[in-house]
Amino acid sequence: MSKGAETRELALREALRQASVVGLNGLTIGTLADRLEMSKSGLFAHFRSKSRLQIETLDFAADRFRLHVVLPALREPAGEPRLRTLVERWLGWDTDAEYAMPGGCVFAAGSMEFDDLPDGPVRERLVAHQTDLLDSIAIMYRSGVRAGAFRKDVDPDAVAQECYGIILAHHVAARLMRNPRAREYAMATFERLLASVRT
Amino acid sequence: MSKGAETRELALREALRQASVVGLNGLTIGTLADRLEMSKSGLFAHFRSKSRLQIETLDFAADRFRLHVVLPALREPAGEPRLRTLVERWLGWDTDAEYAMPGGCVFAAGSMEFDDLPDGPVRERLVAHQTDLLDSIAIMYRSGVRAGAFRKDVDPDAVAQECYGIILAHHVAARLMRNPRAREYAMATFERLLASVRT
Repeated sequence: MSKGAETRELALREALRQASVVGLNGLTIGTLADRLEMSKSGLFAHFRSKSRLQIETLDFAADRFRLHVVLPALREPAGEPRLRTLVERWLGWDTDAEYAMPGGCVFAAGSMEFDDLPDGPVRERLVAHQTDLLDSIAIMYRSGVRAGAFRKDVDPDAVAQECYGIILAHHVAARLMRNPRAREYAMATFERLLASVRT
Repeated sequence: MSKGAETRELALREALRQASVVGLNGLTIGTLADRLEMSKSGLFAHFRSKSRLQIETLDFAADRFRLHVVLPALREPAGEPRLRTLVERWLGWDTDAEYAMPGGCVFAAGSMEFDDLPDGPVRERLVAHQTDLLDSIAIMYRSGVRAGAFRKDVDPDAVAQECYGIILAHHVAARLMRNPRAREYAMATFERLLASVRT
């Protein structure tokens, strides 16, 4: 890795950590520079603007999500094993030490932060990543239908929204409410979903 | 209503509107005073501190939630009609003109805003209201079991977390993603939930 790429990776990892706690809009090149003990102008040369920094932080998180959650699911057989791996890994991805999101998933928090902000490049990127994710789930459902595992009279996009609901409710139950049974309840919901879509 | 109570009601309605858009932590007595064209000191006499204002705004929202969502559900027969009324009214309550939350449900947004903030009176009140709400759903489930409508081998608290997931995913799909089918998908999930808990 070149020196520039290394700095960028380090900065984005720290940016993700900060955005996870203070929100994407709380992220600034100034506080990031302080934390990394770098000059603000040096960091500015990397990112050029706050919105570029926010967008690259989202892209960085999305890359890690694909690596940690989506790809392991795609390595499982189509149908139940694939969807189960997706949901199980998704439930844990924000607490995985490697990804360092101490304030929880940046997409879940960003969804509430940007939902009523005016259109702009950061909101657009957030929507694009979430659309990709929901589409991936719908595609996994469809491959399960083709494999004969899932019912074909169920709307794959409704299943995608349902899976996202399991994750969001788990996020609130585990983080805000500190409910030790949050994960167990999330998996109970997922089992009910599976039972109702199995052929 | 006394003059004082009227001012308070007016102020809390506007505070709820603002908190819905900028978040509970974005709420300040100063911006509220500007918007209401009142003196900051006059408003301060009503609320004393920012955290009191935030707490009273949450209490105000919770009262309205009970009135608009929980009580109409409790007027329905135990079991499916009651749970259905709860979910249907809950899906619409943040867009009901009377309650004026242009930025969406203050509890849903507050859950992501306060999840990793340190303990304090506002976070505690938010958790208390959410606990009340989840408990109400679990109680509705139990009354459905007693009425013979719902299975007794399902954990009522898991059903409560599942219902909350339906609402949160709808919030993101409708507000961030602007998906016109968000409500339809939410109801499809709810129908699957009902099918799996019916006796």
